[in-house]
Amino acid sequence: MSSYSPRLQRLIDALRRLPGVGPKSAQRMAFHLLDRDREAAQLLGGALGEALSGIGRCPQCRMFCEDESCRYCSAARSQAGQLCVVEGPADLMAIDAGTSYRGRYFVLMGRLSPLDGIGPEELGLPQLEALLDQGWVQELIIATNPTVEGEATAYYLAELAKSRQIRVSRIAHGVPMGGELEYIDGGTLAHALSDRRVL
Amino acid sequence: MSSYSPRLQRLIDALRRLPGVGPKSAQRMAFHLLDRDREAAQLLGGALGEALSGIGRCPQCRMFCEDESCRYCSAARSQAGQLCVVEGPADLMAIDAGTSYRGRYFVLMGRLSPLDGIGPEELGLPQLEALLDQGWVQELIIATNPTVEGEATAYYLAELAKSRQIRVSRIAHGVPMGGELEYIDGGTLAHALSDRRVL
Repeated sequence: MSSYSPRLQRLIDALRRLPGVGPKSAQRMAFHLLDRDREAAQLLGGALGEALSGIGRCPQCRMFCEDESCRYCSAARSQAGQLCVVEGPADLMAIDAGTSYRGRYFVLMGRLSPLDGIGPEELGLPQLEALLDQGWVQELIIATNPTVEGEATAYYLAELAKSRQIRVSRIAHGVPMGGELEYIDGGTLAHALSDRRVL
Repeated sequence: MSSYSPRLQRLIDALRRLPGVGPKSAQRMAFHLLDRDREAAQLLGGALGEALSGIGRCPQCRMFCEDESCRYCSAARSQAGQLCVVEGPADLMAIDAGTSYRGRYFVLMGRLSPLDGIGPEELGLPQLEALLDQGWVQELIIATNPTVEGEATAYYLAELAKSRQIRVSRIAHGVPMGGELEYIDGGTLAHALSDRRVL
C-alpha cells in the first residue's frame, strides 16, 4: 500500500476538516494548490492566520466582528427599535444582503437542542435578555429556521419578549416566490394555507 | 447592500480559489472554521505553510517530493525495468494504491495541448528522454487518460520509446469492472469490442 509523504498527508488531512470535503476532494485541492496555484495556498495560509487572530465575536450581537465597533450594532441601526434573531452568521448575511431590513441583529450560533447539550446559555440568551432590558427594542423579529428545533427556539424567544411586553413577530413561512404549488411539500402548503392573508 | 468585513472577505476569497468551491461553499467553510473549528483553521494554516516550503518536485519523476530521495524513484523500483507515465500526481497515487505495480513513474503534470501552449517541454519530456536513455527501462507503460489529448500524448510518448527500441504498452480501456453493458457509453463499448482478447 502506498501513502502520501508526511507534509502532503497533513495538508490533505487539514483540508478534509473543511465542511463538505471528502478524501478525494481534499487530495484534488492539495494537488491543485501545490501544482497549479501556490499563490492561492499562500493567500489562504495568510488569510487563515489573519482571520484567527483578528476576527472575534461582537459582545452585543455575537456576529463575527473584527473592529472595536460592530457594524451591525451601530446607533443608527438601533433607532428602528427592531431586533432580528437568527441562527447563524450566514442567515444574518442573507437577510442583510437580500432585504431592506436595517435594524439590529442577534446571532444565536445554533438552536435550542437539549439532547445535544445546547441550552439557553450556549445560545447567549442571557445576553439577549440584557439587550431586551435596555429598553430600545420595540419588536423582536424571530428568523430561526422552520425546523423542529428552530420552532422550539422561536417559542422560547417569543416568551422572553412577551414577558417584557415587547412585540414579537416571526418571519412568514409559505410557498417561496417563483415556486410552483405542484412541487411544494405538504407541510409548507399546509403552513401557507393556515397563514393566508386577507386581501 | 451589505458585505463582509475585510478579513472575513479575504478568507472567503482565498477559500474560493480551491477547486470546486463556489461563493456559498466558501462562506460556509469560513463560518465553520471561525465558529466551530478554529483548531482546523490553525492546522490548515500550518499545513499550507509547511507544504509550500517543504514540498518540491522530484527531478527524476516530477512527483511531489519532500525528501532528498524520492520514494517512487528508489533503486528497488528501477529493478523491474518498468516506467509508467501518468498525467498527474492523483493518477500516480491511484495506480500505486490500487494495483500491485511497483515499478517507477513519470508524472507529466498535464497532457499535450498545443492550443493551450502545452508542448513537450512543459511536460518535461526532455527529462523523460534522459530517463529512457539511462538504459534500465525495458517497458514504457502509458497510463494517460483516454481523452483526445491523452491519446495524442500517448502516441507521442510511444514514438519516443519506439525510437529507442523500448517496449511500449498502453493500459487497457474497456468496460469497467462491475459496470453494466447497458449503461456504458458507445465509445467505451466500441473500444472494448475492438480490443477484445482471445480466451
